[in-house]
Amino acid sequence: MNFEFIKSEIEKIAVFSQKDWELFSSFIEPHTLRKKEFLFSEGDVVKYLAFVQKGCIRYYLNDNKGDEHIVYFGFEGWWVGDMNSFFNRKPTIYYLQALEDTDLFMFNRENFTYAIENTTYGEFFREITKRSYMSMQKRYAESNTKSAEEKYLELLEKNPQIIQRIPQHYIASYLGIKPESLSRIRNKISGK
Amino acid sequence: MNFEFIKSEIEKIAVFSQKDWELFSSFIEPHTLRKKEFLFSEGDVVKYLAFVQKGCIRYYLNDNKGDEHIVYFGFEGWWVGDMNSFFNRKPTIYYLQALEDTDLFMFNRENFTYAIENTTYGEFFREITKRSYMSMQKRYAESNTKSAEEKYLELLEKNPQIIQRIPQHYIASYLGIKPESLSRIRNKISGK
Repeated sequence: MNFEFIKSEIEKIAVFSQKDWELFSSFIEPHTLRKKEFLFSEGDVVKYLAFVQKGCIRYYLNDNKGDEHIVYFGFEGWWVGDMNSFFNRKPTIYYLQALEDTDLFMFNRENFTYAIENTTYGEFFREITKRSYMSMQKRYAESNTKSAEEKYLELLEKNPQIIQRIPQHYIASYLGIKPESLSRIRNKISGK
Repeated sequence: MNFEFIKSEIEKIAVFSQKDWELFSSFIEPHTLRKKEFLFSEGDVVKYLAFVQKGCIRYYLNDNKGDEHIVYFGFEGWWVGDMNSFFNRKPTIYYLQALEDTDLFMFNRENFTYAIENTTYGEFFREITKRSYMSMQKRYAESNTKSAEEKYLELLEKNPQIIQRIPQHYIASYLGIKPESLSRIRNKISGK
């Protein structure tokens, strides 16, 4: 098993000592999701947080009309899961589903908590959580203040792999618009 | 100056050593905002994160039609500010305004970063950022999946001080609805 990618991703922020890395890497539980397979569904108590080694997932929830709302897509290098359910042992309201065959490196609660409190991973986790918070606040703010077209154009610019790897109806769900509206926006842009 | 409240709030999560507390408390810069006064506005590079010792603030942004969208209200015990602008020295897109006369304990970037990296405050900051992230994700999810009435009822239950201390039109902005819709919901509920 090759752990170079996860190590290099973490070490962009906090460098492991040899001892910390040996401990941390011993916590990794590799797991493969086939395309369309779920890691967890609404009602589960989430047992793992995971690093995406290869592939792509979507993280979403259903509204009370049964419509799906995608909160994020997770590609290579992303940390995914429901921290609330994981840390507080509460049933999740989310679904995590693979959109491609996906290799995950998973961590259970006991090991993950130990790593945060006792290794340099704690420093990484603080920083990544801070960034996730800022990014979620931005996403919330933009969902309320930007037009669908503005959101799509920003997505094209900042995260082109979403456009290339994700089916259109999921992109529409991520942007909070109907698939027909996304088609209109795409036609309008390509007609320019 | 009485620092008991901020100390006890932090120590719900991580207890200071005497030495850490002396350092941390020496970083506190008290500052009072008069009702309606701003700590920062769109375009500013945010110089302080702040703890609300007394009073209440709103944190909001404008959309491109000039309408305001309130991201959160901050009451006693809240940490407020724009981390993205603060840490990355970028102009903020937000406004932070006092809704009552408000006493803040502020921290500049140099001191705050030092405290995170060198005192037990780092442990607190990691935990509070994690909670903020989970709460922002929940708020984002609910803004897309719950009806205005559901959101208002949950607010009534979980955060009654918002209802008591905040003007109606700001609550409407926080819920992402028009003031008329909030009036209808309130009438419907009180008619039950």
